[in-house]
Amino acid sequence: MLLSRSPLAPAQFPDLAPVAGVRLFTGKAGVGYKGRDNVLLGLFDPGTRVAGVLTRSRCASAPVEWCRAHLGSGSARGLAVNAGNANAFAGRQGALAVDRIAAAVAELAGCAPKDVMLASTGVIGEPLDAAPVLAAIKAMLGGEAATFEGAANAIRTTDTFAKGAGARAEIDGVTVNVAGIAKGSGMIAPDMATLLAFVFTDMPVAAPVLRDILGGKVATSFNAITVDGDTSTSDTCLVFATGKAPLAPIATRADPRAEPFAEALGEVLLDLALQVVRDGEGASKLVTIEVTGADSDRSAEVIAKSIANSPLVKTAIAGEDANWGRIVMAVGKAGEPADRDRLRIAFGDIVVAEGGARSPAYDEAIASAYMKRRELTIKVDLGIGNGAFTAYTCDLTHGYISINGDYRS
Amino acid sequence: MLLSRSPLAPAQFPDLAPVAGVRLFTGKAGVGYKGRDNVLLGLFDPGTRVAGVLTRSRCASAPVEWCRAHLGSGSARGLAVNAGNANAFAGRQGALAVDRIAAAVAELAGCAPKDVMLASTGVIGEPLDAAPVLAAIKAMLGGEAATFEGAANAIRTTDTFAKGAGARAEIDGVTVNVAGIAKGSGMIAPDMATLLAFVFTDMPVAAPVLRDILGGKVATSFNAITVDGDTSTSDTCLVFATGKAPLAPIATRADPRAEPFAEALGEVLLDLALQVVRDGEGASKLVTIEVTGADSDRSAEVIAKSIANSPLVKTAIAGEDANWGRIVMAVGKAGEPADRDRLRIAFGDIVVAEGGARSPAYDEAIASAYMKRRELTIKVDLGIGNGAFTAYTCDLTHGYISINGDYRS
Repeated sequence: MLLSRSPLAPAQFPDLAPVAGVRLFTGKAGVGYKGRDNVLLGLFDPGTRVAGVLTRSRCASAPVEWCRAHLGSGSARGLAVNAGNANAFAGRQGALAVDRIAAAVAELAGCAPKDVMLASTGVIGEPLDAAPVLAAIKAMLGGEAATFEGAANAIRTTDTFAKGAGARAEIDGVTVNVAGIAKGSGMIAPDMATLLAFVFTDMPVAAPVLRDILGGKVATSFNAITVDGDTSTSDTCLVFATGKAPLAPIATRADPRAEPFAEALGEVLLDLALQVVRDGEGASKLVTIEVTGADSDRSAEVIAKSIANSPLVKTAIAGEDANWGRIVMAVGKAGEPADRDRLRIAFGDIVVAEGGARSPAYDEAIASAYMKRRELTIKVDLGIGNGAFTAYTCDLTHGYISINGDYRS
Repeated sequence: MLLSRSPLAPAQFPDLAPVAGVRLFTGKAGVGYKGRDNVLLGLFDPGTRVAGVLTRSRCASAPVEWCRAHLGSGSARGLAVNAGNANAFAGRQGALAVDRIAAAVAELAGCAPKDVMLASTGVIGEPLDAAPVLAAIKAMLGGEAATFEGAANAIRTTDTFAKGAGARAEIDGVTVNVAGIAKGSGMIAPDMATLLAFVFTDMPVAAPVLRDILGGKVATSFNAITVDGDTSTSDTCLVFATGKAPLAPIATRADPRAEPFAEALGEVLLDLALQVVRDGEGASKLVTIEVTGADSDRSAEVIAKSIANSPLVKTAIAGEDANWGRIVMAVGKAGEPADRDRLRIAFGDIVVAEGGARSPAYDEAIASAYMKRRELTIKVDLGIGNGAFTAYTCDLTHGYISINGDYRS
């Protein structure tokens, strides 16, 4: 099935400068996709630190299990990613394929296999044949290095556009570079998608600090988005820090330089995460859900996601229907502390409900006009505490059904 | 919007004998619906016991709050239900409407207002005007009593067919009658639906026992179904026991007569619950999800509902796609104890995955042929314990999007 570019896609791939110490290559393995590059190889200079966040699925893919076993050391010299086959639920053959690919990349990088990170995306349950992936990897070094855009294209599955983002931080007079790529078209798209993100920086930073910063920033970026509430067997977000910027390494989170670096990293992660929502299967609207006044941040997150995942809310948005009763329903079903009579709901700056009833100022025509926008903000204030969370989602349209139901995988 | 009868609807409304001690009436209030009966009045003989299960929504409707306040006494003499306006999120006016309706029914029944149970279904956030409902109720007694089918029709909103079910139990040589009606077209349907069920029996049974039996049976019937995972502000299931059958009352759950009565009640509740799934918005297939071998029954329930609520699983079923990788995904995302390598998945009796990989016997053609059925069973065995749960759902089709997104409410 040919998918046309999402109406919410950015105009173009951003202009990203190379990150010192990072070499990227792409090639064709003919597994899952023919006639296009679908394997990504990354080689990192010695001393590169890595941190990662992996799916919490109890049925994680073989490469996720590999990363989980080897991220602990905090060092990485290589990365291999294939698109077209997720190498998930593939039994012993899946684990063997992972071993062989890691060994091959380790040989090229001159490192131990444990310093190679892996990710796969595509069909679940189809055994991955490692041989063509290995052949593609071995052939790559003879060719030209890839740009970030080329790398982002190589890891696409049902994505309708390549996703990249960059940011810079000025630290002690040095410009630090953060650049990342991602793929994902829905929190998960069926057989043929999943969320993968790889971010590269030249900042020297100790692995435990990198891990800490990444965990915090993923919580408000990739873990704040949802397309359909489904979680992939393969979700992987890795950050590689080559340490090539001429700065002393950040050794603790308390280092005053940690914050500007964390901000730049967070900016890239949120940018990539929103691009995934913009490419949500069938999406026609980008929706920001701001929950405030909740009992706790965690409670605000549960409520925001209850709204963001509600099929009734999402179909109403697709229908440009100012159906705030469905927001009330989604708040109510979240099971978190809430007081109907203190609840306040607004579409953008238009208050639609407050004090346990429709707002006296409510005007259906004004609310309806707001719903016609391509990007919407739904604000929910619980009025009982200081907890806040912002989630991002898209609408639920016929396109989602067509992509996921109208064809045989 | 005119909805055509669900393809999964039963051929006809069942033949239900009247329940001694129960009188039903219907009438037109012109609130929400014009030109059809949309108010139901029930009057019960003195001594009638009641038990109920209500929505857990934190934004419950005014009638739900009324029932919650008054179910404790365990006695009931009246019931009033209106369709077209949910009287939810309607502020002080909602509570006042409830007070007025209860007072009017109490006068007709010759009881205290607290012995009147109430339910409303329809638009959320629209203040309910009690006057036309009161007028309709007062006019009813002059007319003919309603049949169960007439009563089931009066409480419909987006339902495409009237829902009724009956069962009998032979207890000490006496035939005990259980009959019920329900409405619901989706766990919730947008502004215009919600789950309501009212069951009537002539069995004499003490209120605490009735409550206990109802709680147990709702867990495996109404709480085992899902259409879209959305929970209404108004879900209400009430059982009225008039005690007219010539038997001594069941005073404790240990009474050997409690079990056959509980079975009859459970049968009616499950029948009604499955009719709600059969009328799920846009449904074209009825799907039973049997989870076994889980760590606990509760864990099995979480996994079964993770599968039943997954948009990716539901769209695959709509597409008649034997996409078992999505079942793996849904098991994995449930967050419950699971061991990928012990997981076994079958469509009906066709094993598709086992031992952490695709079944060696897997035949795509056979699995695909199974998916063409109108009623499917997905079996998932975790292989790690004795926990079991069966959930029921329907597929996710373009019809759901059209009903909930393509029109303005």
